[in-house]
Amino acid sequence: MVMRNGVPDSWPFHYQKLVADCGAIGIVCPSAELLMSDLQQLFSPDEIAVAKIIVTRGEGERGYTPPAITTPMRVIIKSAMPNYAAVNYTKGVHLHVCETRLAHQPKLAGIKHLNRLENVMARMEWRDEALFDGLMLDQEDNVIECTMSNIFARFDGKLITPDLSQCGVAGITRQRIIELANSPRLTKSPGVTSILGLTVEVAQLPLSLLLQADEVIICNSLYGAFQVNTIANKTWSQQPLASTIRNLLTHD
Amino acid sequence: MVMRNGVPDSWPFHYQKLVADCGAIGIVCPSAELLMSDLQQLFSPDEIAVAKIIVTRGEGERGYTPPAITTPMRVIIKSAMPNYAAVNYTKGVHLHVCETRLAHQPKLAGIKHLNRLENVMARMEWRDEALFDGLMLDQEDNVIECTMSNIFARFDGKLITPDLSQCGVAGITRQRIIELANSPRLTKSPGVTSILGLTVEVAQLPLSLLLQADEVIICNSLYGAFQVNTIANKTWSQQPLASTIRNLLTHD
Repeated sequence: MVMRNGVPDSWPFHYQKLVADCGAIGIVCPSAELLMSDLQQLFSPDEIAVAKIIVTRGEGERGYTPPAITTPMRVIIKSAMPNYAAVNYTKGVHLHVCETRLAHQPKLAGIKHLNRLENVMARMEWRDEALFDGLMLDQEDNVIECTMSNIFARFDGKLITPDLSQCGVAGITRQRIIELANSPRLTKSPGVTSILGLTVEVAQLPLSLLLQADEVIICNSLYGAFQVNTIANKTWSQQPLASTIRNLLTHD
Repeated sequence: MVMRNGVPDSWPFHYQKLVADCGAIGIVCPSAELLMSDLQQLFSPDEIAVAKIIVTRGEGERGYTPPAITTPMRVIIKSAMPNYAAVNYTKGVHLHVCETRLAHQPKLAGIKHLNRLENVMARMEWRDEALFDGLMLDQEDNVIECTMSNIFARFDGKLITPDLSQCGVAGITRQRIIELANSPRLTKSPGVTSILGLTVEVAQLPLSLLLQADEVIICNSLYGAFQVNTIANKTWSQQPLASTIRNLLTHD
């Protein structure tokens, strides 16, 4: 999360996801008040930095049996805000296509748990700093996400973002972009039905289809949204959607 | 691992697996000498106890990018030897059939890595202490393993143990039992081709087939082997294979 003025940007979205994801794996999430008080011990109101909250199940014995009652452990990590290259904002970013595939596990899909060895293996596939992130597919060649980002593809007036019911992490920026596309526009412009001026669909997105998109953007909580400039041999020219979304995310 | 006389039982098997599994996820395993010296700091020669070795990639920054060079971290954990019920040795054990399925991930299958959230979720499904372990299936109803054990099914003179090329942990006791079944018998008994007197096959093992087996055993490094007495409504009468295997594992 980006910490600004002593609080996390989009905190209600982050906290709601933390509660839901903890619940999905049987952990009772610490209260928002407690976590906010932890954050305020570590971050001063006059800095912009990155906060990471990790909640663990708590202490246990050897073996897989969790104790009947545990006190979840809270870990708060402070890091410097990344310094993104200016070209990411203007031309867009380059993506590696990862060989490491995401396994289908509906019981854990969408959740931001800590079992991310697939992402670690995928991120080890490249060291070229010109590649901003790596596209991760499932074993059926569907695009799911990038190692640290969600993804949207635009086809004319429609955005498609991958279905995450089998694998992947459903990030809050993805959720916010879906909500932007579903929010009625306040001024009445004929033919424009949402703030974004686009409809959105959560669907299967084969790599072959992604490469035919009119525009591709990736997103996460730190950088907001970047346009994708290249994936393998495919190049997209500069377009305004990522910048529009960044603005809407910031001022929402 | 069981520590006895100051050294781990079957140490060459354990160390070889640790080296191979570390290598599969890009970690250079610490030397056997270093780990043995760690163990000898924690365990005295006159106790029987459980040792667990965890090797991590080492320290890194936020995000999935591992540093170019890291020093792996060694964690050695000492626990009491479990006190198994006498009935496990005589009648056998009861298995729960887990609802949580194992996802297919060929890149990580067989490896004893620490991303075992599926096993944790599976182990949370029961609290009845009469259930010794939980049978884990893949999403196609193939038996893979139990949460903390591997499994073998006997059909006449043939043992089948599940293929672990898509998911599961290939434990060293499973490997040792396969080797026992493949080891020529020293005395020449007509028709008996191996020490175990059985052939062994690594194959797909649907749950429906497992339930038709003549005998089922589970195994791990701590208890060796136990016969399975019941799975759901299916009961097997007491047979000698688990006890034979325990003896061979101990004296091998």
